[in-house]
Order: sequence, then C-alpha cells, then structure tokens
Amino acid sequence: MGKQKSNPNKFKKKSFDQKKSFEPRVPMRVETLTIAEITTESSKRIVALSGIVDRIAQTGGPTIFSVTDGTATLALKGFLKPGARAYPDIEEGDAISAEVRVDEFNGELEGEIQRIKKLDEIGKQKVFDAMDEILRERAKVKPMPFLIKSQILDKLKSKMIEAAQNIRMAIFQNRPVIVRHHNDTDGYSAGFALERAILPLIEDQHSSAKAGWEFYLRAPCSAPFYEIDDSIRDTATSLRNVAKFSNKMPLVVITDNGSTPEDLLGIQHGKVHGMEFIVIDHHFFDEDVISKEVLTHINPFLVGEDGSAFSAGMLCAEVARFINPQVDNITQIPALAGLADKIDLMNKTDVDSYVKIAEEQGYTRELLADISTVIDYVSAKVRFMEVREYIGVLFGQPRDRQKALVELMAPHIRGLEEKGLAIAKSTVKAEKIGKTTLQILDIDSTFPGFGFYPKPGRSVSLIHDYAEKQKSDNLVSIGLMNTAITIRATDKANFSVHELIVYLNEKLPNAFVDGGGHKNAGSINFIPGKKQEVLDLFKDFVKTRQ
Amino acid sequence: MGKQKSNPNKFKKKSFDQKKSFEPRVPMRVETLTIAEITTESSKRIVALSGIVDRIAQTGGPTIFSVTDGTATLALKGFLKPGARAYPDIEEGDAISAEVRVDEFNGELEGEIQRIKKLDEIGKQKVFDAMDEILRERAKVKPMPFLIKSQILDKLKSKMIEAAQNIRMAIFQNRPVIVRHHNDTDGYSAGFALERAILPLIEDQHSSAKAGWEFYLRAPCSAPFYEIDDSIRDTATSLRNVAKFSNKMPLVVITDNGSTPEDLLGIQHGKVHGMEFIVIDHHFFDEDVISKEVLTHINPFLVGEDGSAFSAGMLCAEVARFINPQVDNITQIPALAGLADKIDLMNKTDVDSYVKIAEEQGYTRELLADISTVIDYVSAKVRFMEVREYIGVLFGQPRDRQKALVELMAPHIRGLEEKGLAIAKSTVKAEKIGKTTLQILDIDSTFPGFGFYPKPGRSVSLIHDYAEKQKSDNLVSIGLMNTAITIRATDKANFSVHELIVYLNEKLPNAFVDGGGHKNAGSINFIPGKKQEVLDLFKDFVKTRQ
Amino acid sequence: MGKQKSNPNKFKKKSFDQKKSFEPRVPMRVETLTIAEITTESSKRIVALSGIVDRIAQTGGPTIFSVTDGTATLALKGFLKPGARAYPDIEEGDAISAEVRVDEFNGELEGEIQRIKKLDEIGKQKVFDAMDEILRERAKVKPMPFLIKSQILDKLKSKMIEAAQNIRMAIFQNRPVIVRHHNDTDGYSAGFALERAILPLIEDQHSSAKAGWEFYLRAPCSAPFYEIDDSIRDTATSLRNVAKFSNKMPLVVITDNGSTPEDLLGIQHGKVHGMEFIVIDHHFFDEDVISKEVLTHINPFLVGEDGSAFSAGMLCAEVARFINPQVDNITQIPALAGLADKIDLMNKTDVDSYVKIAEEQGYTRELLADISTVIDYVSAKVRFMEVREYIGVLFGQPRDRQKALVELMAPHIRGLEEKGLAIAKSTVKAEKIGKTTLQILDIDSTFPGFGFYPKPGRSVSLIHDYAEKQKSDNLVSIGLMNTAITIRATDKANFSVHELIVYLNEKLPNAFVDGGGHKNAGSINFIPGKKQEVLDLFKDFVKTRQ
Repeated sequence: MGKQKSNPNKFKKKSFDQKKSFEPRVPMRVETLTIAEITTESSKRIVALSGIVDRIAQTGGPTIFSVTDGTATLALKGFLKPGARAYPDIEEGDAISAEVRVDEFNGELEGEIQRIKKLDEIGKQKVFDAMDEILRERAKVKPMPFLIKSQILDKLKSKMIEAAQNIRMAIFQNRPVIVRHHNDTDGYSAGFALERAILPLIEDQHSSAKAGWEFYLRAPCSAPFYEIDDSIRDTATSLRNVAKFSNKMPLVVITDNGSTPEDLLGIQHGKVHGMEFIVIDHHFFDEDVISKEVLTHINPFLVGEDGSAFSAGMLCAEVARFINPQVDNITQIPALAGLADKIDLMNKTDVDSYVKIAEEQGYTRELLADISTVIDYVSAKVRFMEVREYIGVLFGQPRDRQKALVELMAPHIRGLEEKGLAIAKSTVKAEKIGKTTLQILDIDSTFPGFGFYPKPGRSVSLIHDYAEKQKSDNLVSIGLMNTAITIRATDKANFSVHELIVYLNEKLPNAFVDGGGHKNAGSINFIPGKKQEVLDLFKDFVKTRQ
Repeated sequence: MGKQKSNPNKFKKKSFDQKKSFEPRVPMRVETLTIAEITTESSKRIVALSGIVDRIAQTGGPTIFSVTDGTATLALKGFLKPGARAYPDIEEGDAISAEVRVDEFNGELEGEIQRIKKLDEIGKQKVFDAMDEILRERAKVKPMPFLIKSQILDKLKSKMIEAAQNIRMAIFQNRPVIVRHHNDTDGYSAGFALERAILPLIEDQHSSAKAGWEFYLRAPCSAPFYEIDDSIRDTATSLRNVAKFSNKMPLVVITDNGSTPEDLLGIQHGKVHGMEFIVIDHHFFDEDVISKEVLTHINPFLVGEDGSAFSAGMLCAEVARFINPQVDNITQIPALAGLADKIDLMNKTDVDSYVKIAEEQGYTRELLADISTVIDYVSAKVRFMEVREYIGVLFGQPRDRQKALVELMAPHIRGLEEKGLAIAKSTVKAEKIGKTTLQILDIDSTFPGFGFYPKPGRSVSLIHDYAEKQKSDNLVSIGLMNTAITIRATDKANFSVHELIVYLNEKLPNAFVDGGGHKNAGSINFIPGKKQEVLDLFKDFVKTRQ
Repeated sequence: MGKQKSNPNKFKKKSFDQKKSFEPRVPMRVETLTIAEITTESSKRIVALSGIVDRIAQTGGPTIFSVTDGTATLALKGFLKPGARAYPDIEEGDAISAEVRVDEFNGELEGEIQRIKKLDEIGKQKVFDAMDEILRERAKVKPMPFLIKSQILDKLKSKMIEAAQNIRMAIFQNRPVIVRHHNDTDGYSAGFALERAILPLIEDQHSSAKAGWEFYLRAPCSAPFYEIDDSIRDTATSLRNVAKFSNKMPLVVITDNGSTPEDLLGIQHGKVHGMEFIVIDHHFFDEDVISKEVLTHINPFLVGEDGSAFSAGMLCAEVARFINPQVDNITQIPALAGLADKIDLMNKTDVDSYVKIAEEQGYTRELLADISTVIDYVSAKVRFMEVREYIGVLFGQPRDRQKALVELMAPHIRGLEEKGLAIAKSTVKAEKIGKTTLQILDIDSTFPGFGFYPKPGRSVSLIHDYAEKQKSDNLVSIGLMNTAITIRATDKANFSVHELIVYLNEKLPNAFVDGGGHKNAGSINFIPGKKQEVLDLFKDFVKTRQ
C-alpha cells in the first residue's frame, strides 16, 4: 500500500517534534562501542557509537540512517512524523556520533536514536581515518602461492595483489561491482573466475543471499572492447540504482578487454559519472593510454611479456584466489581459457601445468575443448544477457549437469560447424600469390546471414584450419564482406594486420580503413564502395610480405 | 533496509543456541494433523505434522521452512540467531516431522518450531508416498464431454486426460508452468486457452493473485519450432528463479509447435536442466522423435489422423476444459483457431460445429476472421514478448473492448494488406510451366524490408489467394529471397515441399537446402550464391510434378 | 514467503465472520471528517468519512480499501478471514461511507473498518461531485508570465493552461503519466521539461520518492510519430500495471510528435484501452485529425502561426511552469531546443530572448550546441530506453557533471562527424540541374550500415551544410538508399517534399512512394525495385521547380 500513503501534510506537528534530541538528559554512563561490538546482548541498552551515514531511507514512518564505521553497518531510526524526514541536517556522507537504544526488529538489530550529532570537519576526518584504517585492514590480501610457477605471474604479482585489494575494498565499502568481459571462452572464463570470488564476499558483507543480484553484475561486451555503448548502459543502470536504492556508483572490472585505445572513451565516460575501473587484459596495444585512467591495469605487455603467452582467464583465476582464498570451482578454468585462446602455441609449459591441475579435477583436454565449443555457441545466443545461473552450469555448477549439457550440445555444435565448413569449402576460392596461398571466402554470398552459426569469423577459422591441415603452411584466409574482411594467417605468411591497415590507409585513404587484431588474426573495416579496391590492395600487400 | 543488515558475525551465540530442539520435553498429548486441518482454531496450540520441505528461505531473522504434505503448505519458523541458518542439517527436499506452535502473523498461519526431525529414508518414502497419493487424487481429471462430437477427439481423449493431469499435478506441486506456442492465430489460441485454465488454479494454489506472474509464463516462439534459443531463454530464466526465489524447474507445455525433429534439441536441452515437457501439436513429422522425450505428446498424426483436420487451438480448448472445468471465455476459441488455420478445408464438419458454438457467443465468421487478422498483425509487433493482458483483450477480456479494438484495427490492417497486394501485383511475374502457373514474387526488390507489414510469407499468401480467385487452380506461388523461398501451392499443382527439398539436395547438394512445411505450403533455405540455380531447379521440379 | 501461503480454504469461518459490520451499535457522536482532516490526533478514535474506493488490495490477511475523497487517500482495512476478500460487494470505483477506528501502523495512518456502506447512485454522484470539485480546485493553474514576450505564446496561452490543468488533474487522480517524445534534442528537451514539472507533483501526491517510477514514464518514439508500435507497447505495459498493481490507465502526453495523420491510429488505439492523450507539437499537418481525439492539442499551426517559429521544447518549458510553478532547471531548455531545431532561422527574436536567459545560467551558445550534439549521439545509442537519470545528467543534474560529460563527449562526436563528412565528400556526386546543384550521396555504398555514426540523415545534413558554406545557395542534397531518400534543400531551390511525393505518385504509382517532412527537409520511401526510376523522376522534379 506504500503507493498511496496518506498525505503527510495533514499531520499536525505538536505531538511529533524532535524534542528527544534536544531535551537535557541526566548524564549516565553510556558505553561507546564499535558497531561490530553491538550484539543482541546490547538489546534494550543505550550505547554510543560514531560512523558515517551510508544511506538514508525515508519510510512512511521513521527515517532510517544506515551508519557504518568500517566494522559493520547498523540501521538507526529517527522519527519526526510519519513519512517526514528526521534530522534533515544530516545527509548521506556525513559523520555522526549518536546514542541509540539497541533493539531487535524482525531478528535484525537496530538503534533507536536518542541523541545524534553531525560531526564537524575535524571529527568527520577522524571517523573517516579510523574507518579507512579498518577497511584497509580488512581488504588486505595475504597472497597465497600461485597455482603454477610462472615468470609472467611473478612479474604481475604486485599488480594482482593491488587489484584484489581494490576489489575487496569496494565490496567492504558496499559499492556494487560490475564485471565486463570479452564475449568468448577466455573472456567468460575470466569473468566467471572473478565472479566466483566476489559473490560470496558480497553476500557476506550484506548478510543476504539476494545481495548478489543487487550489488553485482557480470556481462559480456558485444564488441571486443569496452565500447561507449557498454559504458552508457552501465552508467545509466548504475545512476538509476543510485537514485532508486541509494546505491553507490560501482567499481567496474574489465577483463579480456580494456587495454586498448578503443576502450579509453568508455572508461573516461564511466569516470565522469563516478565509476572506478580495473582492467585485467592480455591484448596488445601500441600505446598504454589506460593505466593512468584506472585503479589497476594488469597486462603481460606492461611487464615486458607477451599477452599471447598468458590469457585473461588464466590471470583472473589467480586474481580470484587473492580476492577470496576460499574460492572454489576455478582451478580448472585457466586450462579451459588458455586452450581456448591457443596460449599453448606460445607458452606450452604454463598451459600444460594448468591442464594437469584441470585433469586432476576430471577435465580432460577433450572435455575442455567441448566446453569451450559450447561456451562460444551459447555466447552467440545469449549475446549481452548475463544469464548468471546458466553460465554457472556451463562452468560446472553442478559438474554433473555441466557434463550432461556438454555431452548434449557439443556434438550438435560440431555438426553445425561441419556443415559450415562444407558450405565454406563449396564456395571458397584459393589463389597463389607468390609462395602464399590466399583463401577468399565470400561471406555475403555463402552464408544466410543473421543468426547462422558458425558466424563469419568462426567460418574463416574453420576453413583456415582445414587448409592448414592439408599442408598449406604458407596461408592467408579471409572472409570477405561488404564492409569488412576477417583475416587468419600462418606464421610463414609473415602477415601483420597492423601493417596491412597502415598500407591500405596509405594507398587508399578514401576507403577509410580501420580495424585491429593480432599479427596472424584480426579484421578490418572499410566503406562498402571500396570493397574491390581494398581486395586488390590486400593481394598486393600479401605479395609485399614474401 | 534488507540490503545493509548488520554483520551477523557479531552476534554471540550464547543466548541463541538451539537447545529447544534437543532438550528433553515432558510428554504431552500433541495432536497430529494434516496441514489442511490446521486452522486458526489451532492458534496458540502445539500440533504435530509431517511433510516435505519445499523451500527454505533465510531471512535476517528466523529461517523459514515451507513444508507441504500435499494437502496444503505451512511456513515453519526456526530461529538460531539473526540471519543464521537454523537446523542446517535440514535441506530442501528432505522429509521432516515436527511439533510446532501454531500462530498467526499478518493474517497468515505459521508454525513456530518446537521440535523438528529429519526423517530417515524409510520415513521419507512414507511421507512422499502419502503426498503423492494426495496430489494424484487432487490432480485427477473427471473428463466432461467434448464441446463437439469428433472421432479425432475421441481417439486422443486418453492422451488429453493424461496431459491435463500432468499439468494439474505440476500446479499442485508448486511447479511453475511455461506455455510456449507458435507465433500465429492458431498458436496464440492454443496458448491462451491453456492459460485461461491454468492461471486460476495457480492463483488458488498459492492463495495469491500475484502468483500468476511468479509461477506462469506464456510466450510465442519466434520460429515455427521450439528452438534451442527458446530453450536457452526458458532455462536461463528458470534457473535464476530457482536461485533467487527457490522456485522449482518448470513444466513446459509446447503447443502448435513441438512435434518435429527441429524441436528435439530444445526439449532435450531443457531436460538436462530439470524441466519436463508436454507437446500438443498438429504439425506433420516424418518420424516421431518427441514422444519418448516428453510426459505426453498429443498430435492427430499419432493416432492415424491428419493434423490438417484439427488445429492446436481446437485441441487446447478441449484440454483446457479437462485441466479446469470452470474455465470460461474459451468456447469461441476452437472456431477462431480452426478457421485461421483453414481446418475447414479438410474437416468442415468439426469446424462448423465449433463455429456454431462461437456464434452463440456472438462471434460471427466475419468477426472471427477480423480477430485473426489483428492477432497476426499484433504478433508481428510484440514478437517474443508475452504482453499477457493485451493478448487477453484481443481474446475478449472484456469482450466489448475486444470488439472496439478489432473494429479499429482490422480495417487498418486490411488497408495495409491491400497495399501489400497492390505492390506484389506490380512486380510479380507469372510463367506457365506445363499446366501449372508459377508466380514469382521477388521479395528483396519488392518490399522495403524489416518492419514492413505484410511480411514476406503473408504477401505470398495474398498474391496466391488473389490469383487463385482469378481461376488459376493449378498454381504455385513463391516469394523469392536471397537465401530462402516461401511457397504456396494449390492441390492441382501436386506439389510437395518435402519432396522439393529431397529433389534439390540430390541435384544441387552444394546449395545446402533445408526447410519444411506442409504439402501445399512451406519454405526452404539455401546459401545465397546458389539462388539462381535453386530457382532453375525449382522450375524443373514443378515440371516433374505434372 | 507470500508465494506459498497456507490454503485459505482450511480456515473455519466461525471466529472470523463479519459480524462487526452488521451488529447493532449504540449510537455515539462520531465526527465526520475529510480525509485530509484525519491526523495522528485522530488516532484511536472512531471517525466517519466518505469517498471513492480507488484500489482494493487483497493481502494474506485483511483486505485493504484505498479510499480517496479528493483531499487525500486513506487505507481502510477490512478483515473477514486470512486472505479472504472482505466486503466482496464493494468494488473499485464504488462510493462508500464508513466509520473507522483510526490507527497508526508503521508510521502510516489507517482506518480499521467498523461499519462500511456502499452508497447508492445518488450518494455516489454526490461524493463524485464533491471530489471533482476539490480536484478541480487543486488542479487549477494560476498562470505566471511567460519567460519571454511572444505573440505565439500569447495565442496558445489558453490551450497551455488547459493542458497543464489536465496533467495536474491526472496526477491528483493517481493516474500514471506517460510522456512520449521525438527522438532528437528538441523532443528530449520537451519531454525533460515536462518531467521536471510532473515528477515532484507525483512524489508529493503519493508521499513517496519511489512513486516517480511507478506513476511516470518518459520515452522517445523510435519513428518521428507516435506509431502503433509505441501505442501497443504503452498499452501493454499499462494494462499489466492495471492488472498487477491496480493502477489506472495513464494520461499520455505526446510532444514534438503527435499532430499528424501518422499519429492518429496510435492515439485511437490507446483510447480503445482507456488512455487519454495530450499533444504538444510544432510539426506541420495538412489536416487536423488529432484535435477531436485528444484532451488538448497545442500546435502553432492551430492558431495561424508557423511551427518553424517555435519548437516543442520551447513550448513545453513554458507549459512546465504552468504545471508546477516550483519547477527548476528548465529555463535554459528553450534556448537549447530552439537552436537545435534551427528556430532562429525564422524567429530570431524569441530564440535570442531565450538564449539570453540561458546565458544568465552559464549556458553559452557553444555549450548549448555541444549539449545538443551529445543528446543526438546518445539518443542514437539508448534508442527507446528511458535511462531517466542519465538523461538528467545530460540536462544538467548536476550541472558540473553535465559540463564534464559534454566536454568529454562533444569533441569525440565532432571527430566522428568529421570522419563521416570526409567519407561523404569522398563519394558524393554533384550535378547541375538548371540553376540547382543536386548532391547525391549513395548511402548504401558509402557507409558501413547499422551502428555507424553519423546516421544517414545526419550525414546528408553534414554534406549539405558543407556545400552550402562553399557558396552553393541553390542546393538540394539527398541520401540515396535502397528503399528511401532523405532530402535537404536550400530556400533558393524552391523545393517541397510534399509536392515531390504528389509528383512521384502521379508519374510512378507503382513505386508506392510515401514519406513526409518540411518544405526543405524530409524523406520518402519507395519499393526497392523502383529506385532508379524514382531517382530519375527526382531529377525531373528538381528541374520543374526552377
């Protein structure tokens, strides 16, 4: 009935003024406690406390001040008249000292305000300092040994501790956490590993299993960047939660995305609105424009290592253990992520170590590959939706259902991929450019379009891998579309997506080419009218790389 | 304030241990009752009961155990300390016996746990057996006579009783029900008839008008199948409701879809996650791969009848009356559904009988046709959204608003269709292939694309019906698209979508043709580069059918 | 636990019958009060009141009757047995007189029903008349002077008062309000100005900050009309709120859209479902088919003025001040809206006056242009979503964040537009047709499609403005697509979108051309196969206008 409350203006003030807080009181010995020290044993007693007002909620009855001192949070009730704001001089963010009568209501402790005082700047600073000290202490990470020995991990360790501490701090400050990740198996692995660590801490912090839905969100990015679209969506949702539920603005953890200039605007945009960011990525960037914008930026390239040698899912599984030493069901994840991102091509040792750990959990390489197949397929279906519990099943919660799901789906998806490969084989054109074989798959005339699986990029991979197995080791395969080309190349082809883009922009500036990717894989965009000229120059470029 | 509850760790255990459940008690005469027998008259008394723990909810105060014994559900409260799980050895699904002090809280009865005991396997089995017996008794269907006399109905009767019983059982077990239906008038009719029967039972079962939104969902499928996309969506939503609200996994009723191999993966996928399925369909299938996967499979083809002689909406209106004898506002639905699916072409008798019943309710054939027109149009607008109450208006709740809506919309839609027909007539090409006239409507160059109404399939129907009225009774009409062809044919053309697909795959395997449909209507897909070759072979196929 | 309440059927009636309402009572002096006169001072006393039953909510315990008499709303509790409907003869919309014991529950006043009587038609009419009188009095607008002196405003003043009164009346009747607006800066300005006025009144009316999300929605229309799609969406949502929360059907205010025949069906459709409409627009229409369908229709063209001389955002800022004299943060909006819609071209005086007011608030012309740039960009991203709080930031809540956001985004968007212009320049073809230069931008071969910014219409504007600055003052620029052309023209070109459509339909009826717009800007659609013929005739048309 909250919607149609009586008009509060009709209440007369006489019997509901706030005299309690002003009337002189006989001095008595009131014990000063931290909030964590207030227990049911304190019930019916008057205690003194100080802290920061975290939220103020106006009910139809009293005003509720959520006060925290870093040790815990307590709801203080102030009553002026029904629905009217008590102590209007006290606002969110203020520091207060108060004497409250402790009581239990529906099994929760609360404090009925007897006296309350807004602290001055000096007092406020003292409370903040004390609270900060307590929170910092709670947020501190006691790093355990990594799951494997790895020089890359050792170099990144201090940054990983810092990230874990920042995430823990956000949780203990009652800030929501948003995890945004790349839309593939490695990205899902990274996001899920963090989720496994973060969610129990949030539930604990708020003493509520529901808190996981109120203070946490994980979602894939549609593009391989944290685009402005993602940032607008996250910001809009968060601003609404601030307005509607007095939430704080969130800490956003971007993973398997986030290190490149394409992520910059989205991050800066979030910061304008009061968000903070952490990036855990392994993608290449020309220039680091991100570190100065975020709390912590983790990337192998930042410590002189190669991102192709350690994936985001591998990194995040280790960070997860720092965030929450009790985290479970993640030791198989680095192997899943590393194999999916073909990290073993460059760093067989570390991937093998992780695979060994996964195998101890009953995850063979075949099973991990099947899980990866299903994740890629499902990610194409669920797109930007979170579907948290469904993803949980995919990652083994519970494991028997994960196996049943993968056993049902993987053969079906392999069937789709076989058909996709057969279609690709029926239309692909190969031509010899010097020593290099160029495979051209005309996507628009080959595949039915929206909703078809495998998607263009995957189809190019399938036909590329197929041809490579047929002993073409000097090979470039492209998926040609009206406004884009996706590219895969073997090492022998001496390709570079980056240099291709430079080349095309020099030769054909009016095609407005951009794009990105690794040395041997990536994609470019151009304006549709220049498709043929771009393709001709593409061939010239392949020739120049001999 | 639930979000910021005090940290429970601070509560000291001393005064809140669970001694009550272990301390020796002076024996007293405690009456053993079924839950339905516990009434407000039992208030303040201690009674004994046994049952299954259906849900456990942890509040900030006590732990709430929802216990059911088949006769009703009662909330038992156990208190350890605020926010802490009482009786942690008792889990959802366990059988218990308990002595509780009956009390009233906010007008609802509840039981304060005095003693509670988890039953052993033998005891559990006994409780389950008793409950099962009670639920089975409640779920039993006393079949009333069908609305009309029909041999098809008679043959399907036992299956219809079984389906109704399974649906009633799910409701009485507090399981959610999801109804998924084909995205046309017959499908909507089928889904709506079931909804009219199911919703009141759910509201009754949970004593709550809101329960209809928590334990029931009806939604159209986008494709003419229960696709894996539908299944992932339903599963993800249900898993979330399990996690967040301790819901059970639902019973899914698929109607006017579901009988074909294309539905198999979606159904199997749902079962992996704990869903169960019922299918009520009338579409043709080559091989029945569904029956073994579902609780009940109803389809005229399963009893030697033809699905073109009885539609899903006709079937479901009859099933609805078995599910809930008090169901109202559905006796006009079989006529609506049957006419929309042109069942009268094959089974005039039964459709006429239903039309007579509809006419008694004030629904003329013209009005039914207009309603059907509006449903098809609206279904294109609302796509996969449920819009339950809006659909309710379309189906006559209330009837005066239904009439006003149809009177406004039908002329508008007919105007759009007239324009669509005029556009089609301006570009359609007809050619004579032997005795058959082939009408080719080039969709991509004729219609503006996304959002345009009538949609391609409907446009082909319009130009086909128009030409047929112009006395072309040996006629095939196709809508040609870049990757698909939609087809309509007259009986005299001796067409078969099924055999066309076989023919094309034999002659042109690289076009990767698939598709489906009835003898005289359907659609095929192929890869875009083969469009011209497919069209040429299509003409050859028409020639071979002379 | 509300979901699994005990089966109410088990409660025995004996101890819970409604004898209270029927037993003879010793007459006592019961004071009759208006609901606003009932205060906490009335607590524990019995008072008499009469009013209309606004909502009935059945809880698991008592039945709650929300009764309003125009002065305020009070919840009356009737109890039969837990979860059972008390006084089932009393329905929503009935008038009642009652004696209630006033009490406080959770700080809200409520009345425990002692006696309640459904009034007969005469009594009901009396209550309604009294309430209507009170509401009318409360809804009355005391018009303040406009922000600027303007003949257009003076002519529209009485209509603006009427609109404001109708909106106030809806709020005081607890009706939800939906504001639907055009998807550009002027439309957003219009919607936001109304929102600033309406929201505080709604929060006040329901004594709840949450009421703003329950009784108010603002959303852009996707098309430049209130389409049937918008109407179905609004209707479906509202019908659900009626069913689920006993809401009333809303008042819909359409602004910067709504005056044209294209809006008619959507409005009529809403009315079938019980909505009412107000339109505040400035777009041209051939014939006024809207006024007779809506409560109030405001448009400069209706009073012999030109809509190009006063935009919707300018109008709505003034209406907002009538709706709520305390409205703040809107005096800069007319300048923002007017400049964005280029109203200064036709009505420099009024726009300059508004700009002066904006400048007093710190908004320079440059800043206003930048804000407009950001709004247009963001509107393309958020599409039909409301994102209320995000839009609030864009409009200056708070202003420092607005500035930071615009400073970050505007340079980025200008960069995109520069690239868009460069792309356009690289492919645009200009040809001389008599004295007129025709610029043809082939959109499909120039831009990458979905998601690209600037969108086609904006790209045409950019290339048009660029060429105009290069001294082509007799200029027509078109964006050519497969099924549409967007058009911009200078005055000297003597163009008319309206007459073009007439011309094309006469010369080429089979192209099925339609469209709309102003004299110098607009767009047309046609069937794709006629693209070349339409383009040829377009050139002929330009020739005829010399």
